[in-house]
Formats: sequence, structure tokens, C-alpha cells
Amino acid sequence: VSSISRIAVVGSGAVGGYYGGMLAHTGCDVHFLLRSDLSAVRRDGLTIRTGGRTVRVAAQAHGAVQEIGPVDMVLIALKATANAALEALIPPLLHDATALVTLQNGLGNEEYLAERWGAERVLGGLCFVCLNRRAPGVIEHIDHGSISIGEFHRAPSPRTLELVAALQRAGIDAKAVPNLVEERWRKLLWNIPFNGLSIAAGGATVADILADAGLRRLARDLMSEALDAARRIGHDIPDSFADFQITRSQTMGAYQPSSLIDWQLGRPVEVEAIWGEPWRQGTRADAAMPRLEMLYRLLTCLTAKGAAA
Amino acid sequence: VSSISRIAVVGSGAVGGYYGGMLAHTGCDVHFLLRSDLSAVRRDGLTIRTGGRTVRVAAQAHGAVQEIGPVDMVLIALKATANAALEALIPPLLHDATALVTLQNGLGNEEYLAERWGAERVLGGLCFVCLNRRAPGVIEHIDHGSISIGEFHRAPSPRTLELVAALQRAGIDAKAVPNLVEERWRKLLWNIPFNGLSIAAGGATVADILADAGLRRLARDLMSEALDAARRIGHDIPDSFADFQITRSQTMGAYQPSSLIDWQLGRPVEVEAIWGEPWRQGTRADAAMPRLEMLYRLLTCLTAKGAAA
Repeated sequence: VSSISRIAVVGSGAVGGYYGGMLAHTGCDVHFLLRSDLSAVRRDGLTIRTGGRTVRVAAQAHGAVQEIGPVDMVLIALKATANAALEALIPPLLHDATALVTLQNGLGNEEYLAERWGAERVLGGLCFVCLNRRAPGVIEHIDHGSISIGEFHRAPSPRTLELVAALQRAGIDAKAVPNLVEERWRKLLWNIPFNGLSIAAGGATVADILADAGLRRLARDLMSEALDAARRIGHDIPDSFADFQITRSQTMGAYQPSSLIDWQLGRPVEVEAIWGEPWRQGTRADAAMPRLEMLYRLLTCLTAKGAAA
Repeated sequence: VSSISRIAVVGSGAVGGYYGGMLAHTGCDVHFLLRSDLSAVRRDGLTIRTGGRTVRVAAQAHGAVQEIGPVDMVLIALKATANAALEALIPPLLHDATALVTLQNGLGNEEYLAERWGAERVLGGLCFVCLNRRAPGVIEHIDHGSISIGEFHRAPSPRTLELVAALQRAGIDAKAVPNLVEERWRKLLWNIPFNGLSIAAGGATVADILADAGLRRLARDLMSEALDAARRIGHDIPDSFADFQITRSQTMGAYQPSSLIDWQLGRPVEVEAIWGEPWRQGTRADAAMPRLEMLYRLLTCLTAKGAAA
């Protein structure tokens, strides 16, 4: 018997709908917690447009976690800014061995889950994917889609490998990673400068940031600060990885980082997860991070005001 | 015979109109170079509302510097962003001993004049004044009004003292300062953080900056960077002066720094004079200025886009 035969998805926006929907499409027993999209998904199921085809999933849609009851694994895809809602949403889903997999951005989400429901339950997934929710229950998969899954401060376990295998059977480029936190820092090396400067510079695309010599230099300096912090915390990421993050950005064109889109649409931005927590963790490890601190301070103000006026 | 019997004002906006107008009102021979306000001032003169009274000045208004011809002193009150225009405007005003007094903000304006027309001609004035141009030729003097005048890298000379005396006769709180460049750094200690963060934080007043613990800390950190740079350059400004700049800001309330107003109205912002040149001079003196550099980079982008959308 699989240890993940019953799965719940909490936060069924684009990320939860896509990964959960693809798992359901290939036969996994997936239960979606829905709010605004509940009636649409009950009526029409989930629709995922991916790679030129349209996948229709007769999703098991629920309006409350009590309807779902205990599951073997919870995929958590809420915005990190809504984590407080998990206090009520998680307990009804738990049995003794329920795994909690956060697919959220940045740092601090695994810790949040571990403090409340025990570190042994916690896994994390890093999603490298461009998705868009086009309408209630309709998700467009634009580009990429790989996911790296790891246990929280532990090596991959049987359940990690089962989840990876289930995702692979659903056609997703999934892999298990031995050091989840290091992977998070590697991803932050890009998100910190590019998501942050896209807002702080007043609505800059990746191409805008790279084309402006001052912003490009600033992006690389922010990466150096994050790199120094990651190393002091114990992750051996080479300088060449930061250079590679700049290089690979050059093919992205006028890509708008997700935080910029959130900000422009007046949605919450994950300021604490992407900038606040890395700054705090780096500072505790005696890293000097004046640029990250400044970016964090500015983003806190800019996003508190809501969208660009 | 006074060495400043004939004066020209170049850039007759609020600052040039106010100081030049008050001098003309008390009998100085002042010639104003005007562009958009020319016909209004020719018809109605300058109107200065100050301290509850209205001063009307039958100003000598000119549409071209060639009409004015050589003068003893030029008061330069253009935006520093328009300095390139001086190449054509200054030469017709010069005789062998013409003094050039820049009333502009930030660093680099004295150097600009000295490189082109000789350092011995150059003085600078720091204006601590709240003015508003209400209509063509109509200036409202809102608050403050003091002006500190010094020679460029020299002690005050007879002409400095004559200008100070003429301003004092016009009712203005003027004084001669022994070290003009140090005064500029002292003023920058306020302008760098408060003018800069008001824009970078998306439209923050002085009260907003002080009320947000993160921004307030950032303002003080930016002051510390500027203080370190000023000291390395040779100006002995104590830490207590930076603390005093924070303290005195607490009575300003919801004051909008002039750069914020310029930005919001889509006018040029003096990014090079207030942030770029202090960063370059500090960096040449081996000061570490990561926050100032970042602020400069962000403001360069934000102001290039014009006003807040």
C-alpha cells in the first residue's frame, strides 16, 4: 500500500490546482479545498491547459477541510502571507503519519509547519513553473514545471520518493533533493534580486533590470549578499552559480516576476518569506546584508500600500 | 562702489524669483532672465507673498541674456538637471570679475561652473526655504528662508559679505559660511535619506518615514554612510549632527520633500546632484556606501520613468 494514497490540496490556486490536478488525472485520490472556485470546479472540474493539450480533471472539490478528513499527505499551496489560516485548516486533515508538503516560496514555511505539527511531518517542494489561473478552475501552464522535493533537514525518505514517482507518472519533471534548505537558498539567489527590484524600481521586467547597468550591478550585489549568508549558514554554493543565475536570466526577456504581478494586481506579496526571513537568518549568521535589508524595508512599505497607484 | 551693483538671476523660478525679487525690492539692480513667465512679469512685475504681506517688485524682465549683458554677479537657480543650458547662458553675462553664485541643490554645481568659467568666480548658496510658484510671476514664501553663502574652497571674501549684507537688508536671514562644501554635506545628510526614501518608498512624507521603524532605521543608516564619506573627504561633522537631523524632522509632520513633489508632478529630479555625486565622491574617498548606491540606482530608474503612474 502506498503511504500517500490519500492527498489533500490546501490553497487550490494555480500551483495547487496544477500539481494536484495532474496527480488526480493519473489516478491519485486527491481532495481539493476550494473557496472562490468551489462551485465552478464542482460543476466543471479542473481544466489544465498544458503543452498544447487540455486536461480535464473530475476533481473532488470540498468547501471545508472537515469534509475531507484525515489524509496521508497535504500539499500546501497557499500564499505564505495567508499562513495564519493553516492553524484551522491543518488539524482536521491529520492522522499520525500525515505528511505536510509546503509548495510555498521563500524561507520560513517549513519552520512554521514544524513548530505547530512536528518537524517529522514536514517536506517542501520548490516549483519552477509559470502558471496562470485564467478563470475559476481553469489553469494555464505556460512554461517550465519542474519540482524539487525534499524532507525538512533530513535526507529523502520513502514518502519523498513516492511523491516524486507519482508526479513523474503525471508527466511532471520531479526530483528528490538531498538538501531542501540549500535548494531554497539557490532559488532565493534569483528571487531576492529579480522579484525585489522589479517592484522597487517601479515595475521593471527581467530585461529592464539586465539592461540598466546600475540595476544589473545591484542585482549581482544582492546575490553576493545572499550567497555569503547561505555559506555562513552552511550551504556551499559557488560564486559561479550566481553568475549562472544572471546568465540564464538573459533569455527570459520581458518576463515579469510573480511578485511584480502580485503587486500590480494589489495581491499580497510574500515579503517576509522572500526578503525578511533570509535577511534575519543571514543577520543571525553574522552576514552583512545592507542591500537586502534596504530592499526588505522598501518592499514592506511599497507592498503595504497595495498595488502601484 | 559696491562690487555687486549689477545682478542677473538665471532660472527665475521660485528660488531665483524670491531671493532676486527681495534684492530688487530693496533697491538692487537685478535683471531676471525669464522664459514662460516673461510676459506676465513684464506686465505685472513679480509678486512675493511673504510673512503675511505681499511684496510687488517692478522686476527688470528679459527674454535673453544678450539683453542683460555683463553683470557683477549671477545668481543661478536653475534645476541642476538643466545645467547644460548654462553653456550658452553664462558667457554673455561675464566681465572679468563676474561672480557666479549657484543656489542649486546637492554636489557638483560649483565644480561645473569652476571647470567652465574659472574657480575664482564661483560661490554657492544653500537655501533653507519653502517656496511655491503659484502662478506666472507669483511666488508664495511658505516657511523658513535662511541662506548660507560661501566661496568655493575659499574663505568668505568681500563680495561674499556684500551679498550677505544685501540679502540681510532685504529682510532675509543670510550668513557667510567658512566652509561651503561642509555645509553642503550637512544639508545632504538630510536630503539623501528623506528626499530619497520619500520617492523610493512610493510617496512617503517625512512623518511616514519616521513612523515606520524600518524606514527610520534606514534613514539613519543612510546618514551614517554620508557622515563617513564627509569625514573621509575632510569634513569633521559629529554623529550628534545626524541625530539632530532626525530629531528636527519630527516637527515637520507630513512634509513632502521637494524631490517627491518634483517626481509626482513629472518634473526632473536632481538625482546626480543629491545622490550620484555624493556616492561618487564618497566612493573615491574609500567610503563604503551600499545603501546610498542602491538608493541612487533605484532613483535613477524611478525618475527616468517620470512621475508615479
